[in-house]
Amino acid sequence: MNQVNLNSLKHEANELVPTALDVLKQYLKFPTVSAQNMAIPETVEFVVKMIEDADGEAEILDDLGGNPVIYGFFPAGSNGDATKTLLFYNHYDVQPPDPLDEWESEPFESTVRDGKLFARGVADNKGDLVARLTAIKILQNLQGGLPCNIKFLIEGEEEIGSPNLAPYLEKYRDRFLADACIWEFGGKDEQDRISMVAGIKGMAYLEFTCFGADIDMHSSVGAYVDNAAWRLVQALATMKNQQNEIIVEGFFDGIEEPSDEVKKAVQALPFSEEAVTNLYGLKRPLITSAKGEDPRTAMVLQPTMTICGFVSGYTGEGAKTVLPKSAKAKMDCRLVPGQDPNHILECIQNHLEKHGFHDIKVTMVNGQKAYRSDFSHPFISHVMDTATQVYGKEGILAPNSAGTGPMFEFGEKLKLPIVSTGVGWVGSKAHAPNESIRLQDFEDGIVHMAYMLQGFPGALD
Amino acid sequence: MNQVNLNSLKHEANELVPTALDVLKQYLKFPTVSAQNMAIPETVEFVVKMIEDADGEAEILDDLGGNPVIYGFFPAGSNGDATKTLLFYNHYDVQPPDPLDEWESEPFESTVRDGKLFARGVADNKGDLVARLTAIKILQNLQGGLPCNIKFLIEGEEEIGSPNLAPYLEKYRDRFLADACIWEFGGKDEQDRISMVAGIKGMAYLEFTCFGADIDMHSSVGAYVDNAAWRLVQALATMKNQQNEIIVEGFFDGIEEPSDEVKKAVQALPFSEEAVTNLYGLKRPLITSAKGEDPRTAMVLQPTMTICGFVSGYTGEGAKTVLPKSAKAKMDCRLVPGQDPNHILECIQNHLEKHGFHDIKVTMVNGQKAYRSDFSHPFISHVMDTATQVYGKEGILAPNSAGTGPMFEFGEKLKLPIVSTGVGWVGSKAHAPNESIRLQDFEDGIVHMAYMLQGFPGALD
Repeated sequence: MNQVNLNSLKHEANELVPTALDVLKQYLKFPTVSAQNMAIPETVEFVVKMIEDADGEAEILDDLGGNPVIYGFFPAGSNGDATKTLLFYNHYDVQPPDPLDEWESEPFESTVRDGKLFARGVADNKGDLVARLTAIKILQNLQGGLPCNIKFLIEGEEEIGSPNLAPYLEKYRDRFLADACIWEFGGKDEQDRISMVAGIKGMAYLEFTCFGADIDMHSSVGAYVDNAAWRLVQALATMKNQQNEIIVEGFFDGIEEPSDEVKKAVQALPFSEEAVTNLYGLKRPLITSAKGEDPRTAMVLQPTMTICGFVSGYTGEGAKTVLPKSAKAKMDCRLVPGQDPNHILECIQNHLEKHGFHDIKVTMVNGQKAYRSDFSHPFISHVMDTATQVYGKEGILAPNSAGTGPMFEFGEKLKLPIVSTGVGWVGSKAHAPNESIRLQDFEDGIVHMAYMLQGFPGALD
Repeated sequence: MNQVNLNSLKHEANELVPTALDVLKQYLKFPTVSAQNMAIPETVEFVVKMIEDADGEAEILDDLGGNPVIYGFFPAGSNGDATKTLLFYNHYDVQPPDPLDEWESEPFESTVRDGKLFARGVADNKGDLVARLTAIKILQNLQGGLPCNIKFLIEGEEEIGSPNLAPYLEKYRDRFLADACIWEFGGKDEQDRISMVAGIKGMAYLEFTCFGADIDMHSSVGAYVDNAAWRLVQALATMKNQQNEIIVEGFFDGIEEPSDEVKKAVQALPFSEEAVTNLYGLKRPLITSAKGEDPRTAMVLQPTMTICGFVSGYTGEGAKTVLPKSAKAKMDCRLVPGQDPNHILECIQNHLEKHGFHDIKVTMVNGQKAYRSDFSHPFISHVMDTATQVYGKEGILAPNSAGTGPMFEFGEKLKLPIVSTGVGWVGSKAHAPNESIRLQDFEDGIVHMAYMLQGFPGALD
């Protein structure tokens, strides 16, 4: 297949963007809030139509429970390489739009202001799906066919933790097999660099409960009655020391030694303590600074143990002299490749037992393993190189994000490298009011996907 | 003055109870909720009328802010001992009646059921005032005058912590001077023994706050951003060890060595671990049992440090991956005689500083010193002895309660022994729905006060 030059791709993208935006605006009208089970069938129907309008084949998979998973397939053109396949992962569901009164325009009536398109789900993740389908159209228009097979997995439960995805991946593994995968999201950072990740941290989200009594008591009995809040405070304090070091035996078991490429990529990541401090209004230095460590290393290569919530007794204004009957805490441990959430739970249970806290119950609300792509895979550098050319500026590729998603199931079942990139930006406000993408990012993201796809078969050879 | 025998007092009390109950029922109609500033002037007017109806002099003190303090005075009869004075402390305000839907009858429409009178404030503390005024009437009827001077201090802010009482005691000290004081409340325990206290623990109610950032953050930044919840957990854990021992330097400074009488009285107090465990549904052994200590000693003679509340981050259902911007805790330290709440605050601030927690702010919401009467004072044994005779069963007198009240100001400013006793019972549900007193306890309490007053001058000689 002849390679179309980048400028021709850009020109064609510019031609197609108005139609693509019309389609995206229709797609954004569906209030597909999975947490509230809203608008699922009609959104599925619309997604299928978008695939078919782009000359793809669509299949609705819904025999394993949950919202349907949509499989999309676009075969390589006659002059393309049918031995190579790229998989796109997207989701059609969105976050709830609340709080509604903070929106400057209707969340499900997309609006353009200042070169940005505002709507719930535009950045996470409806814009990316339309951009990817538009990239396919560019190649069809300019090449008369696709350079490789292209598949889509578009699910409808990402925003509620993809609880039903694994069985679909298992049963329909053959349909989704591919050589590489582009993950759902991504975008530009505060310095306008495209920021991508090739993996994701795992998670063990735990809930701790301690019951001391059946009822709240007058605090005067604190002279002789044990206190659930003190118990939980003492128990948690044994798990992490004042230097912020996790001191639970076995917590670090199995962690994979990162490769040299990974370490090098981590060193190349941008990080500004000042920017982070200003962004959040931090009152204390970074914990990595206090330990003389590199925040980038911690962010990508080290697990965390974060108290997300703690509640016990009276929490209102002023004084209430109560000895609380119970105390609860929520904790989020972000895991790195090689760690197993079930093992983490077990280590923490053993730790509590060993320290005399058998009265504190720990349960896992949510457990996911980490995934990190093989950083030496040529797909990784292909995505990076094409991004640099399209965006005219070196991009950033982290070996894995500091956040979490259902990537492990893909990596484990499909055995492929994964890179996440998309049309968002640092101000996209995914999950918040006034979610947006910038129109120029949308167009550039289309070009990047088209350009990346065009060179994809060659890059793997 | 001739002594009237106990049976005559009982007979006269029985005659007067119907009228006394009528008065009490009128008094209970006033919804005198100080927390909501309700019905204050009309209640004050009614209390003044009750004093005057009993041939006493009433004075409304209201020049120092807050709800008025009522001073009542009944001079000794011509055949009484005008050199001896007893002071009664009462309050006319009540707790809010909430939750209203748990009341079986209207909180401000008193109702008699099963030999009990139900209404908000009947046990705490309106019933006691009417009982005491009725005792005065008995002595007037049977003796033609009172055996000693009797004074009342009746305040209207006890249920909100008596914030304005001290200045009134200071300015009007001469009016309130007396030889001994009967405190506001008390009643029968689960074995129908009259249970009294001759002192009260103090309190340092503290609030801890830790701000880590201006906004809640995504928990993935836990890799490098410090966590206010962890900070507060770590800080609190340095203040009390896993054996429930308070390990803040200086916390125990100045504690007065209890006298032998006090120690003996503590040993005589009833205590059942089984009863306490069943009452509250405790899940763990008493902390005193674990330490091999006596819960009665802890209850009366040792300070406490109780976490009353803790809140940080996400506390709802399921998982929210947030790194909280702040954490707050409330702590109630019950103090024993000799401890100073300001010193406690200072010790805790120094402790936090010393342990590197200068980012945690501590403020005192409420500070009160403990008070314990001189246990060798003849008034103490006089109240005990008369109770045993009236109730036909040995009573219980604790050197101080495990709870707290504004008693220190009285003891400090007026220099007198104080005993708290009243017409409640173990099921009175003060501060809760369906507050009640038992009619027989009301009548017996009237007799006890009359009998105690009759022998009061002689007991002090």
